[in-house]
Amino acid sequence: MAQKFDQFKTTINEISDIYNAIALLSWDQQVNMPHGGSENRGYVLSTLERIGHQKITSPEFGQLIEDAAQEVSQLDPESDEACLVKVARRDYCKRIKVPARWVVENAQVTTNAQTVWEEAKSKSDFGLFRPALEKVVALKREYASFFSPYERIYDPLLDDFEPGMKTSEVQAIFNVVRPEQVALIKAIAGRPEIDDTFLHVPYDEKAEWDFGEDVITFFGYDWDRGRQDKSVHPFTQSFGTGDVRITTRFDPERAVSLLFSTMHESGHAMYDQGFDKSLQRTPLSTGASMAVHESQSRMWENLVGRSMPFWKFFYPRLQARFPGQLGKVDLDTFYRGINKVEPSLIRVEADEATYNLHIMLRLEMEIGLLEGALEVKDLPEVWNVHMQDYLGIAPSNDSLGVLQDVHWSWGMIGYFPTYALGNLVSVQLWEAMLKDIPDIYEQFERGEFLSLLKWMGEKIHRHGAKFEPQELIQKATGSKIDPQPYLRYLKNKYGEIYHL
Amino acid sequence: MAQKFDQFKTTINEISDIYNAIALLSWDQQVNMPHGGSENRGYVLSTLERIGHQKITSPEFGQLIEDAAQEVSQLDPESDEACLVKVARRDYCKRIKVPARWVVENAQVTTNAQTVWEEAKSKSDFGLFRPALEKVVALKREYASFFSPYERIYDPLLDDFEPGMKTSEVQAIFNVVRPEQVALIKAIAGRPEIDDTFLHVPYDEKAEWDFGEDVITFFGYDWDRGRQDKSVHPFTQSFGTGDVRITTRFDPERAVSLLFSTMHESGHAMYDQGFDKSLQRTPLSTGASMAVHESQSRMWENLVGRSMPFWKFFYPRLQARFPGQLGKVDLDTFYRGINKVEPSLIRVEADEATYNLHIMLRLEMEIGLLEGALEVKDLPEVWNVHMQDYLGIAPSNDSLGVLQDVHWSWGMIGYFPTYALGNLVSVQLWEAMLKDIPDIYEQFERGEFLSLLKWMGEKIHRHGAKFEPQELIQKATGSKIDPQPYLRYLKNKYGEIYHL
Repeated sequence: MAQKFDQFKTTINEISDIYNAIALLSWDQQVNMPHGGSENRGYVLSTLERIGHQKITSPEFGQLIEDAAQEVSQLDPESDEACLVKVARRDYCKRIKVPARWVVENAQVTTNAQTVWEEAKSKSDFGLFRPALEKVVALKREYASFFSPYERIYDPLLDDFEPGMKTSEVQAIFNVVRPEQVALIKAIAGRPEIDDTFLHVPYDEKAEWDFGEDVITFFGYDWDRGRQDKSVHPFTQSFGTGDVRITTRFDPERAVSLLFSTMHESGHAMYDQGFDKSLQRTPLSTGASMAVHESQSRMWENLVGRSMPFWKFFYPRLQARFPGQLGKVDLDTFYRGINKVEPSLIRVEADEATYNLHIMLRLEMEIGLLEGALEVKDLPEVWNVHMQDYLGIAPSNDSLGVLQDVHWSWGMIGYFPTYALGNLVSVQLWEAMLKDIPDIYEQFERGEFLSLLKWMGEKIHRHGAKFEPQELIQKATGSKIDPQPYLRYLKNKYGEIYHL
Repeated sequence: MAQKFDQFKTTINEISDIYNAIALLSWDQQVNMPHGGSENRGYVLSTLERIGHQKITSPEFGQLIEDAAQEVSQLDPESDEACLVKVARRDYCKRIKVPARWVVENAQVTTNAQTVWEEAKSKSDFGLFRPALEKVVALKREYASFFSPYERIYDPLLDDFEPGMKTSEVQAIFNVVRPEQVALIKAIAGRPEIDDTFLHVPYDEKAEWDFGEDVITFFGYDWDRGRQDKSVHPFTQSFGTGDVRITTRFDPERAVSLLFSTMHESGHAMYDQGFDKSLQRTPLSTGASMAVHESQSRMWENLVGRSMPFWKFFYPRLQARFPGQLGKVDLDTFYRGINKVEPSLIRVEADEATYNLHIMLRLEMEIGLLEGALEVKDLPEVWNVHMQDYLGIAPSNDSLGVLQDVHWSWGMIGYFPTYALGNLVSVQLWEAMLKDIPDIYEQFERGEFLSLLKWMGEKIHRHGAKFEPQELIQKATGSKIDPQPYLRYLKNKYGEIYHL
């Protein structure tokens, strides 16, 4: 390549290195750091963030991008080089619209909001959190204003997590999904309850941990390029494709959830392990969007990990590890148990049939707050009304309701819809994959999972963030995000389980 | 403080943050990183090193130091502010004498030398390592030349690890120690061999690990500000006084060494946990020198951990954990076993009576190489002759001889003497401490160790790197480094054990 592009590439590699260091500081903070290290870690993180921010918003970097853009203008627009310049320019243009003053204020407000939220949640007192959340919402409205004109004020927020996606697109999709899922869980509610008491007895943590690691080894998670640790909330963190780590947690009350959490995070991690090596040390060495990322984690967790063919292979192994708990539970009973549908108050504990409804409720509230149709003070009441409408239950206190998620205190408004979109995308990709690998279920029954990983690697993983999510999904499946595959999947699966 | 000092302080805090991040990247590399992460970690480390190096050698920083120096010139020269400017200026003046070209070449040569050394060691073939080591030595001679005029060419190298210390001082000290230690081990060789077979049977790793952690909890290692992990070579890494981590390793062949390694590293770590908080995020928040640092680790490992009063308290506890191995071994036999003197080929396995001789041999060879009296090609032969002279044994191959240590391949010439100086300093401090706490041994017998930590904290730890090592030792003990306390200690201890 030509000279300016090389200079641009060197700069973007250095920037990528700085954010890689920040990622390690943050991973370590959540996994290893002793309590006493917090204060200093805060200083180190903010110094590196400042150095990184200076570099990615500097006029020199902007000029380098423009010079490089000229040099790559003759190349195939799908080449790594052209895509890198395109994405760097898009991110740069967004970043320089945001004044440094806003960035500083936002950091202060959200740092405070997190502390306040923790207290408010523990006391189940929304009134405590309200002033902090009002400031967060005001800042987010201001943030959106930097990107006007827009079609909808929520668009710039959504765009940070789903590049190129519009609020109206998401709403159109959710409007199709919502009534179908509400109807489905109503139908299920009329059926006899499934017995899953065997999931609520004590399981040994170490044995479950080991079983989970065995499972994801079958999936194709590469341990030479990863590791699993414990943390309060499970997450995946990548330090380049050669080092993608996952974490999990053990909750004695919901012991088997460790296994599904491990499968979920392995899905994120195998995506990150699969980016083309040529994209390393650039902003293309990341997922196409949060929804596409979530499609991979939900796929391994649910489409594989809660499927009958998977358990035909693994259930005898699980029974052998846990003879006391599962020795007398047959495969069909186990399968129905792990797929039990039960409307619940807490999003992160929701089953496949109800999960999206938790998300839609949050999206409507976020849009309402941003567009001014809803005030922060009214959130608890509106929350409870929507829960009743969608799921037929309502929380007895705000800690189990509007205060349950950390996202808003972090200032992460615009993120929630990606969870539900991820579910939809997972099945849309699955249907496309089935056309290429019609015997996938027979393979699973034999303990063979690698052809699934290979297909996803080819269609999704290797491209990293070269393409916008809708473009990537179109390439892989022939259409943009389409809710129908997911609805078909839910109806088939739960129709069978609940004899609807 | 005044304006320029504040600016200087802000800059030095940022620089300290960058090196703190580098420390975490390096710690993680040795403790957690999967194999696949090496390549990218290398990039991230070298980017941050470059950013850090640019900042600490920039003319702007030099000017800030000079401006700050003017502002602090009226202050007490022992104030934190005056010491900080003094140390920053000293380090800056040293760094800018070294051309960037040399830094780059040195990094290349030592990176290659490490790879070559590993192969040479595994094949026990010094010829393989020789060309790489010749380059290292040539670079070190050139490095010294940047600091001419000097009294001895070894001085600038030594100064990097023992600020202010001269080669002639070290040699004068070692010339006193050497004949006495040689005579001591000759006398011991004439006595009946001590039985320590009970140390060479299998011990359970987890039980030993837990016992080690119990011991250092008694010492005063603060777990809210630290943790212990496994690594190939034990080490201590500090990320500020609030987060000082240690590592250890388990070698089934020398199982009990894990315990002494844990005590050793806890000594380093408690030093780092003890710097005054006011020194945080500056180059004063580190040890006064490598020798002073080693004095703390050797003190807890040997003066405490291999002493009779310590084991009067802990031995019944150790026996209870390992009844099979130690149930029939009485305290006196155990004490003699862990203090057995036996000339051996490998430095890191040497006992207290022979350790310093391994160091003196290395120092003489380093000086010879630097001054030109010795050529790299003659090292193996000279090594073996010296080993015979000092310890009465010689290695059968170079892997057990001149190739055993990694230091030279890293370019760390000038470091070795600090190990022996650390031993001397440990006892010199100990004698001073005994005057203030005459009943320290009775305290140990009761399991009370905190008054020792408190004394070291007051005299040594809290000062960080405010003073040069000789100055600090003078303040704490009334004299500069003096070999007599160590010689008295050795003669007393081993005179008693071996009935000399």
